[in-house]
Amino acid sequence: MNKNPRICIALDYWEKDTFLPQVQEDKLRKISDDLHFIEPRNLQGESEWIGWLKEKKPEILITAWQTATLPENCLEEVPELKYVCHFAGSVKKTVPTSLLEKGLLLTNWGNSISRTIAETALMLGIGALRRASHWTMEMHQKGGWKDRLTVVTGSLFERKVGLHGFGVISRELVKLLQPFNVTISTFSPSVPDSLLEEFGVSRAPDLESLFSENDVIVELAALTPKNTGIVTEKLLRSIPAGGAFVNVGRGAVVDEEALARVAEEGHIQVALDVYGKEPLPLDSPFRGMTNVFLLPHLGGPTIDRRQDAAAHGIENIQRYLAGEELESQVTVEITKRIT
Amino acid sequence: MNKNPRICIALDYWEKDTFLPQVQEDKLRKISDDLHFIEPRNLQGESEWIGWLKEKKPEILITAWQTATLPENCLEEVPELKYVCHFAGSVKKTVPTSLLEKGLLLTNWGNSISRTIAETALMLGIGALRRASHWTMEMHQKGGWKDRLTVVTGSLFERKVGLHGFGVISRELVKLLQPFNVTISTFSPSVPDSLLEEFGVSRAPDLESLFSENDVIVELAALTPKNTGIVTEKLLRSIPAGGAFVNVGRGAVVDEEALARVAEEGHIQVALDVYGKEPLPLDSPFRGMTNVFLLPHLGGPTIDRRQDAAAHGIENIQRYLAGEELESQVTVEITKRIT
Repeated sequence: MNKNPRICIALDYWEKDTFLPQVQEDKLRKISDDLHFIEPRNLQGESEWIGWLKEKKPEILITAWQTATLPENCLEEVPELKYVCHFAGSVKKTVPTSLLEKGLLLTNWGNSISRTIAETALMLGIGALRRASHWTMEMHQKGGWKDRLTVVTGSLFERKVGLHGFGVISRELVKLLQPFNVTISTFSPSVPDSLLEEFGVSRAPDLESLFSENDVIVELAALTPKNTGIVTEKLLRSIPAGGAFVNVGRGAVVDEEALARVAEEGHIQVALDVYGKEPLPLDSPFRGMTNVFLLPHLGGPTIDRRQDAAAHGIENIQRYLAGEELESQVTVEITKRIT
Repeated sequence: MNKNPRICIALDYWEKDTFLPQVQEDKLRKISDDLHFIEPRNLQGESEWIGWLKEKKPEILITAWQTATLPENCLEEVPELKYVCHFAGSVKKTVPTSLLEKGLLLTNWGNSISRTIAETALMLGIGALRRASHWTMEMHQKGGWKDRLTVVTGSLFERKVGLHGFGVISRELVKLLQPFNVTISTFSPSVPDSLLEEFGVSRAPDLESLFSENDVIVELAALTPKNTGIVTEKLLRSIPAGGAFVNVGRGAVVDEEALARVAEEGHIQVALDVYGKEPLPLDSPFRGMTNVFLLPHLGGPTIDRRQDAAAHGIENIQRYLAGEELESQVTVEITKRIT
């Protein structure tokens, strides 16, 4: 175990401040006092970038969104580099797959930020049932107030909640739903019965049942070729009147044109943080539909919880140095599956 | 114990549908088959109302918002009437205090609907930290989308939450906050240490500490003469930048003009369901401030949970018939304390 590895940190100022507040930077300094920071914007082009790496010879490189792409010849130029600890999620822009094929280790934030997305789903679910988007517009824009005879409000307590997909975000959401005494089912063919039992979640036999037999549907299915557009108009129309459809997963899993038609009819509430095309186009039919709660893909992680991703990365650096298996490792196979 | 008491139910159609869905009506029918329903709008004036009661001679009367006020001479005219089971909260409009002085028993929904208000507080707290009101307006009205460099998001996870007041709604909120790993303190001088220990909540030594040392303040103090305007500009200004002030209790506890000034400066997020004057005046400074999440006092109960209030009332009818002590009894003393 290398006790004082050279670690380079290529984060911009805001990334450094938010991923590495003092409490996290201190953890890093306990691992090594051979730390070298660079603000990516201070390097002009690939030649200065590779030049800096050649000069520093890091064994471990910490990266995030603003880090420049690693050159394809990076490992030849900097043979000391063994492990890229990416503090963010998507690695595509940062690390070419060819470097992984040459043996570079790579991890990302994995599941460390999943709970903040679950939190968004909870807020959108409660907010949809309360018509929070409608009332925000009424109160701010139209001078509105409730009318006792027309106000419609719903609670999450005692409801039936259907989760499309049962990955880590769904599992975090189940924890947040626990105090609401809800009945949870999921459609997620690959998940084993034992995991559902552990979380007290029942299995919906098919997507049709999931949508037609729950009050609140939370969309969290992975975007695979099979899942693209799998949430059809027929499914959306089968959500019981007064119910809600919440998408904090991937927009393209849903036939969004159909969703707009169904939403327009006003029988269900919709809450969206993700869209097939982002930024959401100016002429999106969702804009202006007050029964559609819209957020601009800010489910997670929140800025104050970026440090959870750094903490996860720093634990991985400790694992790397101890020769242990890494968590959230991004392998060649995984990069090829990523949509 | 009267095994088949005469029970009159003076609810309008919507109240009957929502407080007494089949599952609750069935419970009532198990207690008595001598039930008489009246739609209050079918009776013209006090003489028809007292006439109907004289004809029906109920021992128990179920009331809600749309029930006409009971006449002062009601007990002389209908000596059979012993107990008014009010399914809603405020009894002022329905039952004159003089009837309680003459021995009429009265209960209301008590704490049966508190959890829905706690749910609203949770949604507003998460929503405030995510700037949900801002993004609703941006996305719907302005064609907006986030800008990576300016978007500010916060999570409730790991935060310090301060509860002003520790009544039943606060206690329900503590349950909902449990999965968020928050640190909760409260300022509530009358609450015993044992109750705080039971809920894992620490005591703030004073209001100044509560406001200045927490990220999210939830206002749930009772509106007493002492509490009117107790949340001053100085307190509001002491909330840490990036924090949130959520009011789901009573508007008049807060110096709202000061709150508007502090909100306008934009250092904190605000979320309000209640106001000193309701409906919120058209020219309220809060309208149009996008860092203020506004709802038109719909915290609780939601329509789908009105049946919880009925279930609570029906349990009280069972207690009454068994000669047991009633829950949520509204006594002469309580009506004189109600603000």
